[in-house]
Amino acid sequence: MRPLPPGAVIGMLGGGQLGRMMAGAAAQLGYDMHVFSPEADSPAGRVSATEIVANYLDETALEAFAAQCDVVTYEFENVPVEAVAILEAAGATVRPGAMALEKAQDRLIEKRFLNDVGIKSVAFEAVDAPAAIALGLERLGGEGILKRRREGYDGKGQVRVEIGDDYAAAWKALGEAPSILEALAPFECEISAIVGRGVDGTLTSFEPSRNTHVNGILRRSEVPARVGEDTVADAIEQARRLANALDYVGVLALEFFVLPGGDLLANEFAPRVHNSGHWTPEACDTGQFEQHIRAVAGLPFGSPDRRFDAVMDNLLGEEAILAAGEPGVTLYGKGEPRPGRKMGHKVTRIKLAG
Amino acid sequence: MRPLPPGAVIGMLGGGQLGRMMAGAAAQLGYDMHVFSPEADSPAGRVSATEIVANYLDETALEAFAAQCDVVTYEFENVPVEAVAILEAAGATVRPGAMALEKAQDRLIEKRFLNDVGIKSVAFEAVDAPAAIALGLERLGGEGILKRRREGYDGKGQVRVEIGDDYAAAWKALGEAPSILEALAPFECEISAIVGRGVDGTLTSFEPSRNTHVNGILRRSEVPARVGEDTVADAIEQARRLANALDYVGVLALEFFVLPGGDLLANEFAPRVHNSGHWTPEACDTGQFEQHIRAVAGLPFGSPDRRFDAVMDNLLGEEAILAAGEPGVTLYGKGEPRPGRKMGHKVTRIKLAG
Repeated sequence: MRPLPPGAVIGMLGGGQLGRMMAGAAAQLGYDMHVFSPEADSPAGRVSATEIVANYLDETALEAFAAQCDVVTYEFENVPVEAVAILEAAGATVRPGAMALEKAQDRLIEKRFLNDVGIKSVAFEAVDAPAAIALGLERLGGEGILKRRREGYDGKGQVRVEIGDDYAAAWKALGEAPSILEALAPFECEISAIVGRGVDGTLTSFEPSRNTHVNGILRRSEVPARVGEDTVADAIEQARRLANALDYVGVLALEFFVLPGGDLLANEFAPRVHNSGHWTPEACDTGQFEQHIRAVAGLPFGSPDRRFDAVMDNLLGEEAILAAGEPGVTLYGKGEPRPGRKMGHKVTRIKLAG
Repeated sequence: MRPLPPGAVIGMLGGGQLGRMMAGAAAQLGYDMHVFSPEADSPAGRVSATEIVANYLDETALEAFAAQCDVVTYEFENVPVEAVAILEAAGATVRPGAMALEKAQDRLIEKRFLNDVGIKSVAFEAVDAPAAIALGLERLGGEGILKRRREGYDGKGQVRVEIGDDYAAAWKALGEAPSILEALAPFECEISAIVGRGVDGTLTSFEPSRNTHVNGILRRSEVPARVGEDTVADAIEQARRLANALDYVGVLALEFFVLPGGDLLANEFAPRVHNSGHWTPEACDTGQFEQHIRAVAGLPFGSPDRRFDAVMDNLLGEEAILAAGEPGVTLYGKGEPRPGRKMGHKVTRIKLAG
């Protein structure tokens, strides 16, 4: 299969910061990006050749988009699977395809899929009514985290529960939506592995990072992850296994809990470039955004070698305004610096690697 | 003076590859770019929020552009000085200002200005008629290069002459336009120094590169330049002197001939980021495009420190198509790969610096 030639158009479903950073990589590789976004003047749209502003289920707009693009990718895992189906029916090539979205959009399907392909996760129980919470808690050791199966992110749509709680209230807090109850993992730290898989099945991986979340939002990623070599190798191997199982094209991230002793339990995966990989453009020969564009364009991967130890801090709300212009700061071009909103990040170079 | 806040608009006069690469730097810093270009769908316009397509002397379009932009800069030294005057009259801040354009657009004015501020150049004579060529050649040792004073680039608009040539033919070859006759410099190599100067007069400099031209077009830039330490220091010092003399804000390049023994003769300067600095984003902590945007936005400069020895090769015409997707390749998003057209460049990392 031949790579997309210079001047080809890469379509991006989603107009956020991930699309914006991929637009930069696409431009460097000589491609045009066309963005499909429900919101006008999106961060990605403002650095792309064309922005189609329409709902993800607007069939006419999707068909027009399909006609413009040589390949379509996405930056957002909650793009409706139906949108991908419409694009494909209109003749578009969508990479990664619908399967990765289907698996990632529903926490229950996701965890079952991970387990099916041999990737261990925390224990879990499906919850479709308050009574199932009681039952699940008994099986999972008396406490757990109740999460909506769909559409939660950055810690939203989840609540901690233990035996004796008001289950009806917890159920209500999640909007009475189909949910999953997950056992608590006695983890020492969290890491993520980011891998890329090409059209021909070639794999590439970044070194896993250690991630710190506060209130469910990623605050910091650090490389090296300060876990054992075996744990590092295991994380990469599991992420590669996932990419193969999904017949994936592009970059994905698999997040883990690291248990005492170094064993891993998968938490979730993202079928896209990932916040915990925002240190890669600065610290590696080739960053995650470029690797993703390379994959979907059918180009060979660049070297993912890391040149220095690095820390990536997210800049939330006003933090981004205060840090603007500092070395290593990337801003996302979002308007209002609402508290907790991801407005940018900062990569700090710690020392030469190795 | 306060730096431009995130979300501010940087106006770019010119839509070529230099503007395109500066658009990437502006996006990372959280700014929007609006491009003013005589041609639609320009390389810079396709990665910017807005593209105004109009002639550089279209007063109405310039006034609309001035109203949109928090600061205006340019990527092309042949932007008419009148355009800058119209923008300034409409209330725009233009950095660098009109003076740098005025001095750079006319080879005679440029060389006189360089000499006036203590920067030596080759000897030269003004030529306004064929008879002046004969006179000039006698003064300059019998041979020289006749160049149009205005609008020559990449070796266009110049012809080599010596005593006894058909002066009328040479004069005609240059379109009978006001010209300058320059003495030949017995140079060992060519280097360029790229410096930045901030709104507050702060200076920053990249290490000079050794440049190889073929048929008047830059083919390769290498760092280190393999000239003596004194020559390196002298080149930087002269470029800084030029930036100060122009009360310059932004990045400029000063090109030199290196004589046997290491003395320098300035050839010309460019009031903009420069092709011979295209290795800087890959090899330095901060690249020339980001430094220019930082300067015009009133932000402090980043570190220009270099991390490895590097070679930058221009990709002309079809060369860019063949090299597409190779590591270190940047393509410019230009349509037709005409022979000799600058379509991209490739940065090769040679070894760790120092």
